[in-house]
Amino acid sequence: MTVETPHYPFAQRVQQVPKSFIREILKVTSNPGIVSFAGGLPNPALFPMQELEDCAAKVFQKRGAQVLQYSETEGYYPLREYIAARYLQKFGLTISPEQILITSGSQQALDLLGKVFLNAGDKVLLERPTYLGALQCLSLFQAKFEEVTLNSDGVDPDELEEKMFDCNPKLFYCIPNYQNPTGLHYSEEKRKLIAGIAARYPAMVIEDDPYGDISFSNHQPLPIYSYLPEKTILLGSFSKTVAPGLRVGWMVADKDIIRKATIMKQASDLHSNNLSQHILYEFLSTYDLDHHVSKIVKHYKYQRDVMLSCIEEYFPENVQYNRPEGGMFTWLTLPSTTNAREFLKKAMEQDVIFVPGDSFYASSPDLQTLRLNFSNVNDTTMRNALRKLGTILEYTNW
Amino acid sequence: MTVETPHYPFAQRVQQVPKSFIREILKVTSNPGIVSFAGGLPNPALFPMQELEDCAAKVFQKRGAQVLQYSETEGYYPLREYIAARYLQKFGLTISPEQILITSGSQQALDLLGKVFLNAGDKVLLERPTYLGALQCLSLFQAKFEEVTLNSDGVDPDELEEKMFDCNPKLFYCIPNYQNPTGLHYSEEKRKLIAGIAARYPAMVIEDDPYGDISFSNHQPLPIYSYLPEKTILLGSFSKTVAPGLRVGWMVADKDIIRKATIMKQASDLHSNNLSQHILYEFLSTYDLDHHVSKIVKHYKYQRDVMLSCIEEYFPENVQYNRPEGGMFTWLTLPSTTNAREFLKKAMEQDVIFVPGDSFYASSPDLQTLRLNFSNVNDTTMRNALRKLGTILEYTNW
Repeated sequence: MTVETPHYPFAQRVQQVPKSFIREILKVTSNPGIVSFAGGLPNPALFPMQELEDCAAKVFQKRGAQVLQYSETEGYYPLREYIAARYLQKFGLTISPEQILITSGSQQALDLLGKVFLNAGDKVLLERPTYLGALQCLSLFQAKFEEVTLNSDGVDPDELEEKMFDCNPKLFYCIPNYQNPTGLHYSEEKRKLIAGIAARYPAMVIEDDPYGDISFSNHQPLPIYSYLPEKTILLGSFSKTVAPGLRVGWMVADKDIIRKATIMKQASDLHSNNLSQHILYEFLSTYDLDHHVSKIVKHYKYQRDVMLSCIEEYFPENVQYNRPEGGMFTWLTLPSTTNAREFLKKAMEQDVIFVPGDSFYASSPDLQTLRLNFSNVNDTTMRNALRKLGTILEYTNW
Repeated sequence: MTVETPHYPFAQRVQQVPKSFIREILKVTSNPGIVSFAGGLPNPALFPMQELEDCAAKVFQKRGAQVLQYSETEGYYPLREYIAARYLQKFGLTISPEQILITSGSQQALDLLGKVFLNAGDKVLLERPTYLGALQCLSLFQAKFEEVTLNSDGVDPDELEEKMFDCNPKLFYCIPNYQNPTGLHYSEEKRKLIAGIAARYPAMVIEDDPYGDISFSNHQPLPIYSYLPEKTILLGSFSKTVAPGLRVGWMVADKDIIRKATIMKQASDLHSNNLSQHILYEFLSTYDLDHHVSKIVKHYKYQRDVMLSCIEEYFPENVQYNRPEGGMFTWLTLPSTTNAREFLKKAMEQDVIFVPGDSFYASSPDLQTLRLNFSNVNDTTMRNALRKLGTILEYTNW
């Protein structure tokens, strides 16, 4: 056995980034014959193409060269005002535009928060399981990960308190709405409890909320931010409600934190794409975002229904699954005798892919879990592919 | 005296980022009456507005929803092919698209290279003076800075060798073409010498080249990369040749390095703005970039001539200045009895601003230096403002 010596003097952090199994799988999806439940892609049929095309034309005509010049690191001010106004309208939250930093997708917000808060060796508390992109991003700061169990209505409060006490994490990262990967969301009661616990410990709460608008129920509980604004950093994104290719997300936090994050952002990429911010603002001020989002919600809800009814119909009874009330994913737990990576191998032979759940754990992965995306496969294709998956599960001797 | 206790548990690196004096000055420039030689802004009158507007419309019509979907971290492949082909055409360099990573402006390339190479305490060798954005970005990785004197035709080779030997830096960062802040460029001979020295030491060379295309002379020497491709990382940008608001830059390096930088980029912002990459590619494949750049060059050369003739005419003889053969800046050294920050205060009283040179030093700043930008002030305004500056210098008792 030979040990490969690195040719270049790479930093220690390079060795610590978990590999993206998803990324490798997604490379396969360029094969047009494959049915993919693997990605986290919004359905492009629902992008407001004509509207954005019109808005782009208007931006060039009305705003001129300023949209192509260097611009403010904080982001386009009217866009920050729009985001603030929307929090007021949706949740009655008073947030000033100065508390909002525009980021290059909400993924960048994680990078900036790592830069603002994490020294090497600092502890970060994560839901178990959690978003792979957060594991990758925060591992770059050589954080030590701790986990808290995610139950169907949010993380376990007793365990949260215990970990806060025992580990003294610097950050607690959570996705309370239609979580990636599980599709679970936190009850109102749990949000209050979590805010109360977090208030008593030094940890800052990062509340990542890319999916909150994609809600299949009429009741949207308040964000944790609303109970603990001084210690919570709330992340948002237009990737799931308008289009991800524009790379526009944001961070809401106390002004002191925003000021530090702005310095970090200036050092990282000067500012986010200016043209996209203007096009997006033109779209948001011309059209009704809620009306547009209602079309996405209707479609994804239908897709979820198809997916769950197929699982019910085709999968063995001993397969457990979540019933997401929003977002783009559901989460399955196979019987203990099986293995999701083995299942994937068999599925790929039949041109169907998904993500084994092990990628989403900071430690001790549950090898029987897997994530299915329902936003981006049409119903007929979905039925056929899920029937194939069900057949594999039914007839394989593991 | 009270010491302010930080309210939030910020990371150590937050304290180490040098403040951007430029940023503070630039906030003043929103006053329309002020004449600013401070910024590093390309002249927006030269942005190809109509062409980009047409390209944006075509991209929406021809390419559809894919331009607004999540896309490859590496960047849009045809754009990477275009960049590779341009290096072949301009310099006879064979670079494959797989050696090119699209970044969110070339500023992001610095952040990614910090992530790929720097452990806390690693040494980074910089030109003296150097680009403030590099100081800010690399300080986030808690690098220790060392400096090498920049002479009129490049860094001093003997001093470079000495620092390589004594300090063993991990990275050597340089801007060989029309440097920010000095406007200086390296001779062909120095490039060869530097590549030869770097070849004998562990340090990687980061060759930052945002201004190379903005050349007032017909002869453009080869990049250092061409003499030492396996150990040089070459950065480029469309910010000065097309428009900065699109935030499209790139990194050229060995495939092993590109692979690591791609993982870092995925963790940092998933991928760069997809719409902008498509619009830019449409522009580059429809129009002749060299023809467009020749208009910028002609204009900036005229602006430089006006600036230098005004300095010659209005400034005291004991003020030294560089004669840049490209780019957007010149660099002044005032007599030893003066101070550029004091000079700025007096200039601001007359509604003229520039950047005192002290911001551009990693240590022991030269307080008599200052940077003037000539790309973004029209000739009449420039003459009047430089006359004011000359009068201040002539009649002030320091």
